[in-house]
Amino acid sequence: MRIARIAHPEGVAFVAVEGDGNDLVAAEIAEHPFGTPTFTGRRWPLADTRLLAPILPTKIVCVGKNYADHAKEMGGEAPAHPVIFMKPSTTVVGPGAAIKLPRDSDHVDFEGELAVVIGMPCRDVPAARAKDVILGYTIANDVTARDQQKADGQFTRAKGHDTFCPLGPWIETSVSPDDLDIKTTVDDEVKQDSSTAFMIHDVAKLVEWVSAVMTLLPGDIILTGTPAGVGQIKDGQSVSVSITGLGTLTNPVTLR
Amino acid sequence: MRIARIAHPEGVAFVAVEGDGNDLVAAEIAEHPFGTPTFTGRRWPLADTRLLAPILPTKIVCVGKNYADHAKEMGGEAPAHPVIFMKPSTTVVGPGAAIKLPRDSDHVDFEGELAVVIGMPCRDVPAARAKDVILGYTIANDVTARDQQKADGQFTRAKGHDTFCPLGPWIETSVSPDDLDIKTTVDDEVKQDSSTAFMIHDVAKLVEWVSAVMTLLPGDIILTGTPAGVGQIKDGQSVSVSITGLGTLTNPVTLR
Repeated sequence: MRIARIAHPEGVAFVAVEGDGNDLVAAEIAEHPFGTPTFTGRRWPLADTRLLAPILPTKIVCVGKNYADHAKEMGGEAPAHPVIFMKPSTTVVGPGAAIKLPRDSDHVDFEGELAVVIGMPCRDVPAARAKDVILGYTIANDVTARDQQKADGQFTRAKGHDTFCPLGPWIETSVSPDDLDIKTTVDDEVKQDSSTAFMIHDVAKLVEWVSAVMTLLPGDIILTGTPAGVGQIKDGQSVSVSITGLGTLTNPVTLR
Repeated sequence: MRIARIAHPEGVAFVAVEGDGNDLVAAEIAEHPFGTPTFTGRRWPLADTRLLAPILPTKIVCVGKNYADHAKEMGGEAPAHPVIFMKPSTTVVGPGAAIKLPRDSDHVDFEGELAVVIGMPCRDVPAARAKDVILGYTIANDVTARDQQKADGQFTRAKGHDTFCPLGPWIETSVSPDDLDIKTTVDDEVKQDSSTAFMIHDVAKLVEWVSAVMTLLPGDIILTGTPAGVGQIKDGQSVSVSITGLGTLTNPVTLR
């Protein structure tokens, strides 16, 4: 199932996106998408609605340097175990929403990533059972003010600006995360072109690692790291991240 | 006003704590404590209730090395501007709740801190207007697995374990944060004994700095840094942080 969150003529709702190609339909979910969703029976052509971020997480836990080629381009080795950091939930925006460049940064980068969406409260999940606690997958852009990241050491400011976590277009519940092509383009120029198969620590291992530290709640997000090819985005550009089976997440870039 | 959150015989509620000394009474707030709270008329002796964490924040933003003497004991200079990091909201526990030491850390430290509680949605708040967006102040213990902090560089794992953010005993709305004694004891031995007057960046400056990065929401917490004297806590000990006008936050320490 593809789970989206939309603004429709009468409000905001979680929906299941049905159909193929240009003929997509949004079927309204009665409450939330966890467990076994029920439907209201209301339906709209998806084209008549506006896609929002598919989930509003209570927390976004990110993994640094989880692709060896990206660790290398950042001038370091990949760490032996996952190193985690967080983005505040106020960074989340949906497809098509502007990434707003802060005035106090000279260098903001895109980072295309596979995002894991947690489906139930969980703690101490062994890798072998990680699948059971995952609702599905979506696409994220871990936008980063690279100059502030270097200045601070801690990543929170650099990665924590409002609009710095585009998510979408929807959550796919039936995809396997282990070998998906991931591609980032800026104004149609390909910048990142890799596969989730090159992750150092795979999705199951990341769920195990993070849930050994903290309780995860429904809707929480784990960002799985970015491959090589990160680069700057500038006012007026458009950045798209595509992952096999998940679609494309596109966001324009503006000055704040 | 002192705002607490309690478990009472019929459920959970925000309350105003009235009275002095041992004769405290909890007056139930109808909804939430933001804006101008209204009261249900129900009251209990506070001693017949159980204090919970006074607020459940959407985010906890912390400031590193904000007292020069603590920066020195950590073997570094205090940074010229505030360096921020986050604790996940799942770290929050209330007064009396156990701090649970993770099995994979050999060295967990207490860090007594003044906590700022945000009272309204805000962004880009100038220091001169910071007071307007603050609901009040409470006490926090920024519990830290020091070995994991050193191993990771990023602080999220070390400071992100469940139970690693005791908050309480309540939120005091009418205190001035600029010169309050702050004292931490472990099993009655004084470990930290300082004053918020020694902060490098004061509360107003911190609200300005953080809100220039991210939108703050009602109930969000800013932890203002810890003074010198941090040290290890072990299974079976009890740690208390006291701040003038705010009371004392005490938590036992157990193995997870």
